[in-house]
Amino acid sequence: MKVLTVNVNTNEHMTATIAAAARRAASPGTDVVALTPRFGASAVDSAFESYLSAVAVMDCVLAYEGPYDAVVLAGFGEYGRDGLQELVAAPVIEICEASAHVAQMVGRSYSVVTTLQRSVPLIEDRLRVAGLWDRCVSVRASGLATAEVDADPQGSGRAVLAQARRAVEEDHAEVICLGCAGLAGLEDAIRTELGVPVVDGVAAAVRLAEAVVGLGLTTSKRWTYAWPEPKPIAGWPLTAR
Amino acid sequence: MKVLTVNVNTNEHMTATIAAAARRAASPGTDVVALTPRFGASAVDSAFESYLSAVAVMDCVLAYEGPYDAVVLAGFGEYGRDGLQELVAAPVIEICEASAHVAQMVGRSYSVVTTLQRSVPLIEDRLRVAGLWDRCVSVRASGLATAEVDADPQGSGRAVLAQARRAVEEDHAEVICLGCAGLAGLEDAIRTELGVPVVDGVAAAVRLAEAVVGLGLTTSKRWTYAWPEPKPIAGWPLTAR
Amino acid sequence: MKVLTVNVNTNEHMTATIAAAARRAASPGTDVVALTPRFGASAVDSAFESYLSAVAVMDCVLAYEGPYDAVVLAGFGEYGRDGLQELVAAPVIEICEASAHVAQMVGRSYSVVTTLQRSVPLIEDRLRVAGLWDRCVSVRASGLATAEVDADPQGSGRAVLAQARRAVEEDHAEVICLGCAGLAGLEDAIRTELGVPVVDGVAAAVRLAEAVVGLGLTTSKRWTYAWPEPKPIAGWPLTAR
Amino acid sequence: MKVLTVNVNTNEHMTATIAAAARRAASPGTDVVALTPRFGASAVDSAFESYLSAVAVMDCVLAYEGPYDAVVLAGFGEYGRDGLQELVAAPVIEICEASAHVAQMVGRSYSVVTTLQRSVPLIEDRLRVAGLWDRCVSVRASGLATAEVDADPQGSGRAVLAQARRAVEEDHAEVICLGCAGLAGLEDAIRTELGVPVVDGVAAAVRLAEAVVGLGLTTSKRWTYAWPEPKPIAGWPLTAR
Amino acid sequence: MKVLTVNVNTNEHMTATIAAAARRAASPGTDVVALTPRFGASAVDSAFESYLSAVAVMDCVLAYEGPYDAVVLAGFGEYGRDGLQELVAAPVIEICEASAHVAQMVGRSYSVVTTLQRSVPLIEDRLRVAGLWDRCVSVRASGLATAEVDADPQGSGRAVLAQARRAVEEDHAEVICLGCAGLAGLEDAIRTELGVPVVDGVAAAVRLAEAVVGLGLTTSKRWTYAWPEPKPIAGWPLTAR
Amino acid sequence: MKVLTVNVNTNEHMTATIAAAARRAASPGTDVVALTPRFGASAVDSAFESYLSAVAVMDCVLAYEGPYDAVVLAGFGEYGRDGLQELVAAPVIEICEASAHVAQMVGRSYSVVTTLQRSVPLIEDRLRVAGLWDRCVSVRASGLATAEVDADPQGSGRAVLAQARRAVEEDHAEVICLGCAGLAGLEDAIRTELGVPVVDGVAAAVRLAEAVVGLGLTTSKRWTYAWPEPKPIAGWPLTAR
Repeated sequence: MKVLTVNVNTNEHMTATIAAAARRAASPGTDVVALTPRFGASAVDSAFESYLSAVAVMDCVLAYEGPYDAVVLAGFGEYGRDGLQELVAAPVIEICEASAHVAQMVGRSYSVVTTLQRSVPLIEDRLRVAGLWDRCVSVRASGLATAEVDADPQGSGRAVLAQARRAVEEDHAEVICLGCAGLAGLEDAIRTELGVPVVDGVAAAVRLAEAVVGLGLTTSKRWTYAWPEPKPIAGWPLTAR
Repeated sequence: MKVLTVNVNTNEHMTATIAAAARRAASPGTDVVALTPRFGASAVDSAFESYLSAVAVMDCVLAYEGPYDAVVLAGFGEYGRDGLQELVAAPVIEICEASAHVAQMVGRSYSVVTTLQRSVPLIEDRLRVAGLWDRCVSVRASGLATAEVDADPQGSGRAVLAQARRAVEEDHAEVICLGCAGLAGLEDAIRTELGVPVVDGVAAAVRLAEAVVGLGLTTSKRWTYAWPEPKPIAGWPLTAR
Repeated sequence: MKVLTVNVNTNEHMTATIAAAARRAASPGTDVVALTPRFGASAVDSAFESYLSAVAVMDCVLAYEGPYDAVVLAGFGEYGRDGLQELVAAPVIEICEASAHVAQMVGRSYSVVTTLQRSVPLIEDRLRVAGLWDRCVSVRASGLATAEVDADPQGSGRAVLAQARRAVEEDHAEVICLGCAGLAGLEDAIRTELGVPVVDGVAAAVRLAEAVVGLGLTTSKRWTYAWPEPKPIAGWPLTAR
Repeated sequence: MKVLTVNVNTNEHMTATIAAAARRAASPGTDVVALTPRFGASAVDSAFESYLSAVAVMDCVLAYEGPYDAVVLAGFGEYGRDGLQELVAAPVIEICEASAHVAQMVGRSYSVVTTLQRSVPLIEDRLRVAGLWDRCVSVRASGLATAEVDADPQGSGRAVLAQARRAVEEDHAEVICLGCAGLAGLEDAIRTELGVPVVDGVAAAVRLAEAVVGLGLTTSKRWTYAWPEPKPIAGWPLTAR
Repeated sequence: MKVLTVNVNTNEHMTATIAAAARRAASPGTDVVALTPRFGASAVDSAFESYLSAVAVMDCVLAYEGPYDAVVLAGFGEYGRDGLQELVAAPVIEICEASAHVAQMVGRSYSVVTTLQRSVPLIEDRLRVAGLWDRCVSVRASGLATAEVDADPQGSGRAVLAQARRAVEEDHAEVICLGCAGLAGLEDAIRTELGVPVVDGVAAAVRLAEAVVGLGLTTSKRWTYAWPEPKPIAGWPLTAR
Repeated sequence: MKVLTVNVNTNEHMTATIAAAARRAASPGTDVVALTPRFGASAVDSAFESYLSAVAVMDCVLAYEGPYDAVVLAGFGEYGRDGLQELVAAPVIEICEASAHVAQMVGRSYSVVTTLQRSVPLIEDRLRVAGLWDRCVSVRASGLATAEVDADPQGSGRAVLAQARRAVEEDHAEVICLGCAGLAGLEDAIRTELGVPVVDGVAAAVRLAEAVVGLGLTTSKRWTYAWPEPKPIAGWPLTAR
């Protein structure tokens, strides 16, 4: 099977990080194709940038010409998953939701450690809207912007570990979710240090995509995610302009 | 004061409907400037179209060159309000939320009557995320697409009235919110028929924008809606390409 | 238009404070009439006193002989709004709810800073019952009784500022609501200090009353707030005894 | 021990009904003293009337001169319990809450069958504020006003039974709570007909009051229900004027 | 009347502690029969042990040959109440739920102070499932295992008091529930120290059982707690093997 | 990898059904070992039977002597998952939760169609406690006992289809979960008929178990699911007696 893994950032270095994490996690026989959108922020941190990425991701997936079995939306808590679900037949798995699904399978409660405080509400709302909020005991900010995570993953690791430790000790989190695609690769170090499962969203999403595809399931086209009706859409696709 | 009223649809007829509703509702001394986005669907009904409109609306407001005091986002429950709040200094009022605020002031419970069933979840999620869901007793679909509402407001009135009646009688709604900017103008007929207050979101948003501006308040730039950090953004603004 | 602004305390000094705040906030053309109830506590802090004020406020509004367009219930989180809504045709806006409505328009989350810890549960319940609780991140007590606030607004300002600062820094509040009518006038000082919007409930309620009246809406008389049936009521109105 | 059972209606016939229900339910050794407030509605159905009854009940309990061990507030879902808890040392048990407590002990879910639709929201809010809402599957109105119940208990029984049957069959209620003090005495008939436990609030409250007194507990005076501070209160007690 | 009080631990010393607490709390005329299950952990602390106790308690109650009027399940938050409700005609009262019911009658909010942190989630889930969670402001662990509580009640008292103090001061709890049957007897010392009501679950359950029996109520057999259908059950009852 | 699939019923025919479903769903390279507990009900429908099965399942898994990588608990919404998570190192996936996880990945809302009405509350509580309730729009009973499903899967199909249709049309469910392990095999027929994804819990759980094992994750042993402390446990393991 083939999984499209779509970065939300227009940053090839982060696309490579995501691709590597996806390939490490994939089963034998799963091909990972990593895509970078053609417009938008190099490193998404705000709602404005997130909406732009949502459109750029849809544009980029629709422009992809080959066949594929599933899409992984590799922006932690970013906008766009529901739009993409309307537009494609294959299952679409977003990495924040994937983390939460997996975390709930291996612990009673989990915390997310993410980048900036400004992203915390977006992640909380993503989890609420996805119906995965009840077992989340905290979303904690490391204070690092997405670009800083990308530039210095090891340094990021220290800030993330500090918050993860507080999540476990103070919030009684039983599982830690890494709240940014750029943090992939820190799982082992944090698990070793804290003794709890650590979930990377990209890895989780790839494995869940395999599970859904393996079950022969695709997104329900009844009600919410029905195909959009054909209608005049000015200036779309944007990259065709 | 001056209020920008931004349609989410690239449909000048609906922009005119919205502008008329906004002007009817505005206080003396309030100027209404009605904007139409430069790309996107003629009539938004899906999440895909809604994300595209979110970006087109941000593009369009940023491209507006004069001064203004507030922005009314005239897409009922559509995406983009939070992105716009990051990008501009003036208050931003979305019409679904405005309806709910006003409805809660004049009744204990309210229902929304909107267009298609596929839009119901988006509206419910908008209200949940906005913290205005608890007093909503139902979101009901009239079965008409946004374009149909625009083409035949009177015919739409019958379908909306039928659902509004069920909302009052079966769901014990005490107030009805018209769940589409294109339904503006039906308030009197429905109120006369059912004897409950009927709220048009555009009118509500204009009056609430006046109230917020009159109080000297602007969107908090602490935490969630802080200005985005300057950073490389490929292909933005989209209309400049 | 004319707005009745009803103090819940039988304390003319606080009525004057409220009237001044209402007049500062009102649009040109809005007349403010400030009423003081004829019985009850000089400064309401308890549920017992709040119930008594609820009845005294209804008594006082019913005894008012002139015409009016809206009523502002100027007791932060006190009882009585729903009773008044049954008895009068004009819209009734309570100042705690008004604060929360406005706060939600200019920020994703808000905190209330009020007087005594004993009032915190009453305010929380008011917000829950009004369906405005979800975006409240804390209700904090300054430790000052209502009478102390009235006697020394400047000294109160320091205690309120200290809690407001904790609300912003620890609870990530994006907006501060002043949780007592007697705190009106502190908005500018706290906003300057903390850099977040600060909402006074009296001002918010006056502007929202103008908005509702401007929209031509009155309280729904279907279901909850229907006129009470005529029936024998011993000893009412109380001031007529 | 002695239990004050306070009617919220100024209607001696209903006081007698309540007293009879309380005495049937009381253990040997429990004395029931039934009080009628000195002002207010003959039969409370609205929020206005409920606030007035809250004050009249406080007035009436404070005016009672003998010793007592507990107070039963015999108005189903009416206002005033928290005010009374501040003013007296003895436990105060409200009959709507008492019904819900008992219902939750003998079934997983319960429904309330009450008088008019206008009272449904008040009862729902009472249960929410009391933290007893989660296991309530419906509050249904029989369509009869409190005075009609009082005038014709047997006729009321038919309307109540019809709604109770729907609660069991359609809402899967496992227990029925009689939602008006005047319905006391219908328990056996409805239980026989429907085969589920039926709870009368007055009986439940008397037995729970005995339990709380037997445990040596009184209302916590820490935080919410602390004694009100002494302060000037104009025109109180009202009956002394 | 006769109340079966069933320990969940196979530990006769704790059965004696429970029996003593039950007898202190019982009304004159109430007989307490204390049972110890025939298999399971000496002191239950984990979900595994709790499930085993659930089955052992059902086995032990079914094996009891005399008549009885009610069952008190004396394991704080342990599994099994619903199973027992299916199997017997008499009311079944679990001590964690009983504590919460009583606490809500004498205060607006309560905290539980229990044994180990690992038991906190089980108790929280018990309260959620029972619909008694809303007014719980914290469940705090003393850090002592059930066996340690049993071995040294006085030493346990100090650890429990420390957490109870934090519950009152930091969480604004108005009532403290003792979160382990083995803590019975500490009520007076903690109440004296902190000035808030303290509820022992065994005592509360005995008094509530008396109330329910006094009201002539038994568990609803409609829907959830209906008698199990007769069917082949291998190896049951376990003690008969 | 090897997955233990444990029936909760002592019914070899249903074990065979479960094993077949698990093997159909499993990836190449996954071995399925199907276990039947040594005591308990032939077909579990009640809480009593569910508790017994919880213990029998723990007994049976502990008695299994070979290595394994994950456990699938094949009782839809039955008790015991948390106990098993304490006792074994491998991940434990329960089929009701697995269904909900997968359903939420392919639709915005889902319904469960199960056996008897008496099982509906148990399933609802399972989903609430697991934090997977928010997107469930209904749990519907087909009216068939577990044994009837086992005896006549095709006949069961008709009753399940009827409820599934109502779930889609009336409740707006976008995905259907088959609420009994014995219903495995009906997916295709119902999907063909209704045009929505249909999830069998056993298949979902096997694929999710593969995903979790593939990610190298095991149950968190911090806090809730820590290993039980060694302590005297009378009569355990039960099958060793």
